Amino acid sequence: MSLDEATSKRHDRLHTYLAEDLDAVNALIHARMASEHAPRIPEVTAHLIQAGGKRIRPMLTLAVARMCGYAGDAHQKLAATVEFIHTATLLHDDVVDESARRRGRPAANLLWDNKSSVLVGDYLFARAFQLMVETGALTVLDILSNAAAIIAEGEVLQLAATRNIATPEAIYTQVIRSKTAALFKAATEVGGVIAAVPQARMCALASYGDALGMSFQIVDDLLDWGGASGKMGKNTGDDFRDRKLTLPVIRAIARADEAERAFWVRTIERGQQEDADLDHAMDLLRRHGTLEETRDEALRYAALAKGAMGEIPLHPVRNMLIDLADYVVARVS
Amino acid sequence: MSLDEATSKRHDRLHTYLAEDLDAVNALIHARMASEHAPRIPEVTAHLIQAGGKRIRPMLTLAVARMCGYAGDAHQKLAATVEFIHTATLLHDDVVDESARRRGRPAANLLWDNKSSVLVGDYLFARAFQLMVETGALTVLDILSNAAAIIAEGEVLQLAATRNIATPEAIYTQVIRSKTAALFKAATEVGGVIAAVPQARMCALASYGDALGMSFQIVDDLLDWGGASGKMGKNTGDDFRDRKLTLPVIRAIARADEAERAFWVRTIERGQQEDADLDHAMDLLRRHGTLEETRDEALRYAALAKGAMGEIPLHPVRNMLIDLADYVVARVS
Repeated sequence: MSLDEATSKRHDRLHTYLAEDLDAVNALIHARMASEHAPRIPEVTAHLIQAGGKRIRPMLTLAVARMCGYAGDAHQKLAATVEFIHTATLLHDDVVDESARRRGRPAANLLWDNKSSVLVGDYLFARAFQLMVETGALTVLDILSNAAAIIAEGEVLQLAATRNIATPEAIYTQVIRSKTAALFKAATEVGGVIAAVPQARMCALASYGDALGMSFQIVDDLLDWGGASGKMGKNTGDDFRDRKLTLPVIRAIARADEAERAFWVRTIERGQQEDADLDHAMDLLRRHGTLEETRDEALRYAALAKGAMGEIPLHPVRNMLIDLADYVVARVS
Repeated sequence: MSLDEATSKRHDRLHTYLAEDLDAVNALIHARMASEHAPRIPEVTAHLIQAGGKRIRPMLTLAVARMCGYAGDAHQKLAATVEFIHTATLLHDDVVDESARRRGRPAANLLWDNKSSVLVGDYLFARAFQLMVETGALTVLDILSNAAAIIAEGEVLQLAATRNIATPEAIYTQVIRSKTAALFKAATEVGGVIAAVPQARMCALASYGDALGMSFQIVDDLLDWGGASGKMGKNTGDDFRDRKLTLPVIRAIARADEAERAFWVRTIERGQQEDADLDHAMDLLRRHGTLEETRDEALRYAALAKGAMGEIPLHPVRNMLIDLADYVVARVS
């Protein structure tokens, strides 16, 4: 068994442990995305939700609730809430990014249109809030509505930074902390809140969620450049074409000489890209070692996440959550 | 003083009565639409929120809370919530409708871009939920999150019906009940809920809000055709150009002869419009009397709203709310 297979196997253990909860969450998701009056809604959402992804965010809520000894079923509603917020964000991202593909299928805005993506996303946001209101837990409502505001703020911030090669690394960090880590963190926290864990443990949970989310997004951004080795494939180069600044590029720009700088200005700021430019960009990232550095950043956050779990009492799920941090970075390490 | 002036004066009385509350709501709106990290957010929202509109929805919440003897300040947060939900919907509508103007100013999506409209709308939705969570009133959260889902559902339903000349009147009614009346109704209800009024009175409040909202939207749709007299001006004909089916057109299509039907198929379904078509469409509406009928529908709903107020005990605000129903239809009667 390779290292990759072993890591994936460990991730499966969490999935197996939560199988019953996950089935209940899937049933909830399907029931709540239905619409009596507007059949286009489940058409659009089924497309995204059935594609599935790894359900990593709702799994966090379920896992933490179980780990902290929660015995009710509100964690399932909250897990569905988290997945709805995530899916709504994806739908609105599809509009925003004019991205051609999402989760390996054609993006919803190409199959239908921008209008449907916006409005169905709104519907899912509203459904998410309905679901969490049903739990009646005000602290949970507070955490998740704050997270929703932070996510939107992060997306706006990212928009303002796109195509601007002066974007500093601090802005990148803030963008990914808002647009990605905030929901990982909130998903983790609400699992603890409904289990009524003491404050000190809440802090450890929040740190875990934040660090896992940071690591997850950095890996995602690195994979768009083919990972630490920079191996280009059919799913690489989208961020370059979208003129999006992620960590490997921001660091390469910071160390660019005059000619390199002119290259980034032309391709990212002005958007004048030719066929050979992606390969040249990749060469620059390799030359400056920023792909490996980015992988190291992802590993650093994964280690932070695992460290945070050290403050949680022994429990089978605790080890699975530690393994999850390894799983997130396995694709680039 | 003309009838119009008298009606407008009566509307001013409600405004004056609520002046202190409205100031507090405006202060809340400005404080909460700020963003520490993304200055583009207040730029986009200020544009819409400062344009102002009549603040009719938040006024409903404030007025009903006062009328029902509420003495706290949660009604101000709820009024701001309602305005945020409304503004978020407008921002997303601007994307959806590709509309060129909103509240007499260039639409936000032309000044900035579609991306900003979507994301800043999301931010306002999230801010709305944060604000209502702060009130800690679960029934209120339930009502407003349901309303948000119904609004989105109505917008999707409208999207599916656009350009389809087979759209029956029942679908039109359902669309405007969802996309417009639902928020009027929720705004009215939450004012009663925080004042803890008895159930029977809650029903009267809900009926008032629903009927006022229906009347408001029918008037809006009629004004797009120049009102009951069909007087065209610079703000008329947008719905025809957008190929949107509203009550005057739906009824005219229902009574169309073969040639008229061919006209609607060409202009609405196929979107092949020439300069003289808007005038011809107007002629058809006049010929079939559907503009007057639409005005009568608006008046019928206004009367329903006033009737619902009959079940509320005497109070100065009660009469102002009755006057508000007259005010809403004054522009077309």
